[in-house]
Amino acid sequence: MTQTLTIPTSLEWHEDHLLILNQQKLPNVVEYLKLRNLNEYYEAIVSLKVRGAPAIGITAAYGLAQAASLYETENLNEFITLFKRDKKYLADSRPTAVNLFWALNRLDQVLEHVQTVNEAKTDLIHTAIQIHTEDEEVCRMIGEFALTVLDDKRKVMTICNAGSIATSKYGTALSPFHLGREKGIGFQVFACETRPVLQGARLTAWELQQSGVDVTLITDSMAAHTIKEKGVEAVIVGADRIAANGDTANKIGTSMLAILCSHYSIPFYVAAPSSTFDLDSKTGEDIPIEERAREEITTIAGSIIAPENVPVYNPAFDVTSNELIAGIITEKGVLYPDFEESIGRAIGVI
Amino acid sequence: MTQTLTIPTSLEWHEDHLLILNQQKLPNVVEYLKLRNLNEYYEAIVSLKVRGAPAIGITAAYGLAQAASLYETENLNEFITLFKRDKKYLADSRPTAVNLFWALNRLDQVLEHVQTVNEAKTDLIHTAIQIHTEDEEVCRMIGEFALTVLDDKRKVMTICNAGSIATSKYGTALSPFHLGREKGIGFQVFACETRPVLQGARLTAWELQQSGVDVTLITDSMAAHTIKEKGVEAVIVGADRIAANGDTANKIGTSMLAILCSHYSIPFYVAAPSSTFDLDSKTGEDIPIEERAREEITTIAGSIIAPENVPVYNPAFDVTSNELIAGIITEKGVLYPDFEESIGRAIGVI
Repeated sequence: MTQTLTIPTSLEWHEDHLLILNQQKLPNVVEYLKLRNLNEYYEAIVSLKVRGAPAIGITAAYGLAQAASLYETENLNEFITLFKRDKKYLADSRPTAVNLFWALNRLDQVLEHVQTVNEAKTDLIHTAIQIHTEDEEVCRMIGEFALTVLDDKRKVMTICNAGSIATSKYGTALSPFHLGREKGIGFQVFACETRPVLQGARLTAWELQQSGVDVTLITDSMAAHTIKEKGVEAVIVGADRIAANGDTANKIGTSMLAILCSHYSIPFYVAAPSSTFDLDSKTGEDIPIEERAREEITTIAGSIIAPENVPVYNPAFDVTSNELIAGIITEKGVLYPDFEESIGRAIGVI
Repeated sequence: MTQTLTIPTSLEWHEDHLLILNQQKLPNVVEYLKLRNLNEYYEAIVSLKVRGAPAIGITAAYGLAQAASLYETENLNEFITLFKRDKKYLADSRPTAVNLFWALNRLDQVLEHVQTVNEAKTDLIHTAIQIHTEDEEVCRMIGEFALTVLDDKRKVMTICNAGSIATSKYGTALSPFHLGREKGIGFQVFACETRPVLQGARLTAWELQQSGVDVTLITDSMAAHTIKEKGVEAVIVGADRIAANGDTANKIGTSMLAILCSHYSIPFYVAAPSSTFDLDSKTGEDIPIEERAREEITTIAGSIIAPENVPVYNPAFDVTSNELIAGIITEKGVLYPDFEESIGRAIGVI
């Protein structure tokens, strides 16, 4: 999966297990792990071995489908009770990624139409596979639309890893760069390292290099200076959840980039599948922001870099206000302001 | 120097050596080093064991004065030739910090008035001591003016370490927090960790804790979200060089904070001694920006955090445009826009 100049992927289904790329060990070690039972799936999501909203959704779908395939009952009601319990367990693994709930709910809907436990088991696995394969097509479409939106802009900045390994393939924010390379369109990508967990340094820099895309790594603190000095023409990012008015929750640091774009008068784009929209969240105020452990800030790769008892604030996400977003690139096309109207029209009617 | 709840300092002169706090080892190890010859001084500055524009200036002054005290000649012309050689050597240690050149030039001026080598040696050491002691008073004055400017604002963000250990005492941007604590004014300080070299995490968090100031550590990527969610009321930073029009070179990430302040309509202040102004630089365009080694980005504390061969961009400073600055706090008072006019009046006539 990771030979030179191919787009790396992170998930591969094998009947009795999901093979995942352990993203915690990149870029130093390229390690694959087998997930076989509910606890292994849960642990892989919580510990960020699997990350990226779409990849989390796909993994959770396989996890729940595989767990259900092992229930030792022929009674459909009993089966559904166990299913609901395990669904809730997986749903608690990451609070912000709406694709997780979307994928689990899509499995839930399968059970509305089945007559037997065997049928349920088969349909759940098939639905998980369908979620996985559909996502690749969704990401390819996002990339095609992004290429159109970016037009002749070639110097583009991104944060975190909304990449191939965060999805089934291609990624969302990184999809135009992978597709561009296939089509001979050469982007110059500036990747913010993305403290505290360094997904930009560890994952995006690695993924784009694997794919042969020209990538330059900077610290998050260098974003303003780099936009100005290197003539960055656009910023494109992924999303963990998008509210009905277009307010977008994404990796911490994203709203900083959107504000910098506004200051330097360059467009800021969000690239995300339609499963990322949460119309129950009216605005960003309704999106819960996960706070993570203090050690993510006070230590890096085991080294202590701050006084051990210093108070820290570690929000994992921020919300970018809709008025800072030039367009939201989905597999259904590009949504423009007024977002409440364009999102309602494109997503609300599904 | 580092007992609980005292303001830590980093430089102590002892006749035949300068005792310095090794800032590369903080916060894990509190280690003091003796500097005794020109190479030790040069190495301490280049390797960031001593850092902070005023502290670099003071150290360079002691370094040059001590080197000169060891010249084995009674011939004043020969003495001055050696002095010029060593002055140039030290001047090359860090390109952006203008205080370095300011301090070395102040020693140079001493030689215009001396008659003998012995007189020169004595006067140079005395001038270095004077630069050191004057800086403490300068920093205290900056703190007093900053307290007035900050008025009733208590939630303040900063980046890097424009602190006591970056100066003789008190610091510049951190001076109001130390002074405030002495006066019973409790600030809530948000310290950006300041990648790549982590001066905020390693030094500011440590220094403010030592002094008993309430400090919360965040990553640089969290600045926007923290300003919004925690109600930060002002940002205050130090400076490495200020141009005649007020454009300010400071640690990379500073211009990002200034842009965020503009977006959130809170004031952005620069705190710096008048020795930081470089009227030969008409605007920020004239200030050279030091680029440092790639390993500062690709490794942290010896751990590899990015693909080893990934291209990086590592500017150590950025320039904050004068129109983003609410005021420049100096020991002579606070300068307000139009900066070209106010700087010319306050600094130009020295």
